[in-house]
Amino acid sequence: MQRKYRAKILVTLRPSVLDPAGVAVQSGLKQLGYDNVEQVRIGKYIELNVISPDETSARKDLNQMCDQMLANPVIENYKFDLIEVESQTGVY
Amino acid sequence: MQRKYRAKILVTLRPSVLDPAGVAVQSGLKQLGYDNVEQVRIGKYIELNVISPDETSARKDLNQMCDQMLANPVIENYKFDLIEVESQTGVY
Repeated sequence: MQRKYRAKILVTLRPSVLDPAGVAVQSGLKQLGYDNVEQVRIGKYIELNVISPDETSARKDLNQMCDQMLANPVIENYKFDLIEVESQTGVY
Repeated sequence: MQRKYRAKILVTLRPSVLDPAGVAVQSGLKQLGYDNVEQVRIGKYIELNVISPDETSARKDLNQMCDQMLANPVIENYKFDLIEVESQTGVY
């Protein structure tokens, strides 16, 4: 039986890495009058469905996807949540 | 007294809006051998500190920032969590 999981993935720059986009956003917010903002960091948020026989295998796939494509492990961290959304009987 | 809040903001495309970046990522994952992935959607994740006298006023500022700059309300939804990280006495 195959199960369907909804994955919510956060990809963030490692704290030691400069974030020019964050600096630009902070500067833009200041120009709009928001002087009370600091330490802006921009990351990515990815949602996707994974079809897998169980959660362990879904997590394994997701870690590989993040390492290979969704994140750049040299400069980014990632974490994800998995929620089972649906079970499917029969062959996927 | 001013309080400091760490805001974690998720900006996502509205479900009715096409996501070409998501389609491209899904296609890339397929080429890497991940045929078990579907409905990829790409959003933004923003972290920032807001300094405000209280949580209500911090939330009001954040809603305005999202509407004016961080998100495009025509095609995007946003939501955020606030955590108080530190209190500061005196003038900010």
